Amino acid sequence: MIYMDNAATSWPKPPEVIHAVVRCMKKYGANPGRSGHRMAVQAGQILLYAREMLCELFNLRDPFQIIFTYNCTDALNLAIKGSVLPGDHVITTSMEHNAVVRPLKELEKQGLELTIVPASPDGVVDPNDIRKAIKPNTRLIVTTHASNVTGTIMPVEEIGKIARSHGIPYLVDAAQTAGVLPIDLSKLPIDMLAFPGHKGLLGPQGTGGLYIYPGTKLRHIREGGTGSQSESLFQPDILPDKYESGTMNTPGISGLGAAVKEILKHGQRKIYFHEKRLGKFFWEALSQLKKIKLYGPADPFMRTGIISINIGNKDSSEVCNLLDERYRIAVRGGLHCAPLAHKTIGTFCQGTIRFSYGFFNSLDEIKYCIRALEEISRE
Amino acid sequence: MIYMDNAATSWPKPPEVIHAVVRCMKKYGANPGRSGHRMAVQAGQILLYAREMLCELFNLRDPFQIIFTYNCTDALNLAIKGSVLPGDHVITTSMEHNAVVRPLKELEKQGLELTIVPASPDGVVDPNDIRKAIKPNTRLIVTTHASNVTGTIMPVEEIGKIARSHGIPYLVDAAQTAGVLPIDLSKLPIDMLAFPGHKGLLGPQGTGGLYIYPGTKLRHIREGGTGSQSESLFQPDILPDKYESGTMNTPGISGLGAAVKEILKHGQRKIYFHEKRLGKFFWEALSQLKKIKLYGPADPFMRTGIISINIGNKDSSEVCNLLDERYRIAVRGGLHCAPLAHKTIGTFCQGTIRFSYGFFNSLDEIKYCIRALEEISRE
Repeated sequence: MIYMDNAATSWPKPPEVIHAVVRCMKKYGANPGRSGHRMAVQAGQILLYAREMLCELFNLRDPFQIIFTYNCTDALNLAIKGSVLPGDHVITTSMEHNAVVRPLKELEKQGLELTIVPASPDGVVDPNDIRKAIKPNTRLIVTTHASNVTGTIMPVEEIGKIARSHGIPYLVDAAQTAGVLPIDLSKLPIDMLAFPGHKGLLGPQGTGGLYIYPGTKLRHIREGGTGSQSESLFQPDILPDKYESGTMNTPGISGLGAAVKEILKHGQRKIYFHEKRLGKFFWEALSQLKKIKLYGPADPFMRTGIISINIGNKDSSEVCNLLDERYRIAVRGGLHCAPLAHKTIGTFCQGTIRFSYGFFNSLDEIKYCIRALEEISRE
Repeated sequence: MIYMDNAATSWPKPPEVIHAVVRCMKKYGANPGRSGHRMAVQAGQILLYAREMLCELFNLRDPFQIIFTYNCTDALNLAIKGSVLPGDHVITTSMEHNAVVRPLKELEKQGLELTIVPASPDGVVDPNDIRKAIKPNTRLIVTTHASNVTGTIMPVEEIGKIARSHGIPYLVDAAQTAGVLPIDLSKLPIDMLAFPGHKGLLGPQGTGGLYIYPGTKLRHIREGGTGSQSESLFQPDILPDKYESGTMNTPGISGLGAAVKEILKHGQRKIYFHEKRLGKFFWEALSQLKKIKLYGPADPFMRTGIISINIGNKDSSEVCNLLDERYRIAVRGGLHCAPLAHKTIGTFCQGTIRFSYGFFNSLDEIKYCIRALEEISRE
């Protein structure tokens, strides 16, 4: 199996990740932050360790700026619904995943005002268009860090500066970039950054989180036991407990901590340039093939590890089935839960065939994919 | 280590559970319900298998009546916030965990009307008190199935009948009972049942779910990508997708499926009577010790696998520390995130020392705990 679906979930996981999950379940299987016995304390330390690893990756000091959530979608729901109220105005882009669009459209029914800034056909958003969309009641700007359809990287620094200069919180959806692109949160003007644990960060599914810039006003949206202020009938106001109710996915977070440690061990630079090399080769080869339509920016430094294509007018899902059945290549077709992005790049009905490669893919695998596409496009 | 903290998280996990988690991460590590390639399809089958196992346990037919959530708290937040609106009236009890109380108190700030029906000092709620609390605007009754402080089992069938006869949805918090008490959802008059995966069900942390009776009106509270109706900017109305946004904890749910299979293999009856035997012996021995105060009902059939005690006026957390340090017994002291329950049983400041035993505890371990308590109570 040639796995090219890393934009959905990265695979395989480093052995250290699986080992950490197993060790946690076997040795530290108690409830973190609840009881005071040693196994519960050790479980709590696992959560802290993972926060510290993430702090090192994102260049942060305070581990409690990182909140753990069920997944990136859960983090985005918290960040969006905890920030705005009916009557507020939110700006987003036409390149967003439904994890951003659907919560916003739901709030729109309840009186939220929403502006969706259109991107160019290769998925690039002009920061000036964001600036022009600002209104007196704009209370949140939310953009993806990189499109999950084309891989197009957004100008988050420029957008963040505009947001800061207007005193508007800026939320970034790092579903496609955390672990893959260097993200320095001590420098970037970002107020909240939602990330999944199981994509570029190489951790297990069932993990994700939200970075919260100190002082960001954010209401909790899930209340419950936190193991702290047990005497109170109200959610505690301390971090991270304010946003972390109920038992955390300790084994998963243990795996996430080990995964980020692996990234730090290899160095983000190495992972980054490996993907760029694959992306450059892949794109250049495909652009030689007649019937292949390529989407997104040609420059691999303007893209994450995604190449979205079509073969003439062939149905994208059918080509994906063929790639799976005949070539054992795992990719994703269709609309990738991002209908607005497909409208933007002109593939709304056809969808695209999305190859998403990662740290564990080789150049030989890319060459094999090219040969497969060559054969299919000749048929 | 004598592990007596199963009411927080059960431990150890059956080897089959850990094996299922590892196998999922290694072999079926793709994203379920998203792409169409074989690994993604296999991942989707893992979710279905776990739903089917839960259906067998709860005597249900349709696997999509089971929704997976982050944890039981997440399920309770969905069930509560998806059911009521400001101006509605909700009835609950004084034995609830903060996972029920805190969301309700939060909604109370926004105009929800709340009645907390008091229980007797051993934690028993009279169904007639629930009936008397019903108002024309009562839109939800929510009770625990068993207290996490005293183990007291609630008369859910009687309460459910009252709720049904008034057309009011009934939500049960099965945090302490799922997997431990037989629950026949084809017969019980329950509209929603929230459960954790990592307690009596013997699965990994980061899993939980909500059973939803067909036709129950429940709004979604977390929107995002579902892999279905990708073209729509709105949350799909189909089950289970309506309530399952973002990537599920597939490895955890794989472990949960294997865990429930183990329960079914051993038979719930066997687990149930094992716990009753331990509980009867434990209670009778402790009731002979002078300084020991026991809480909750004496009859083991009126309790889950919990015995909450105090030694004179000793601070409960300090005794727990002693049990951990000197005897390597893992228990939980304090208020157990259930302040109202401690007010009900008269232990609000002192808390209780909670022993929660499970399927993997032996009578010898219980005897060891008794000896330890004997020693401490003599000091």
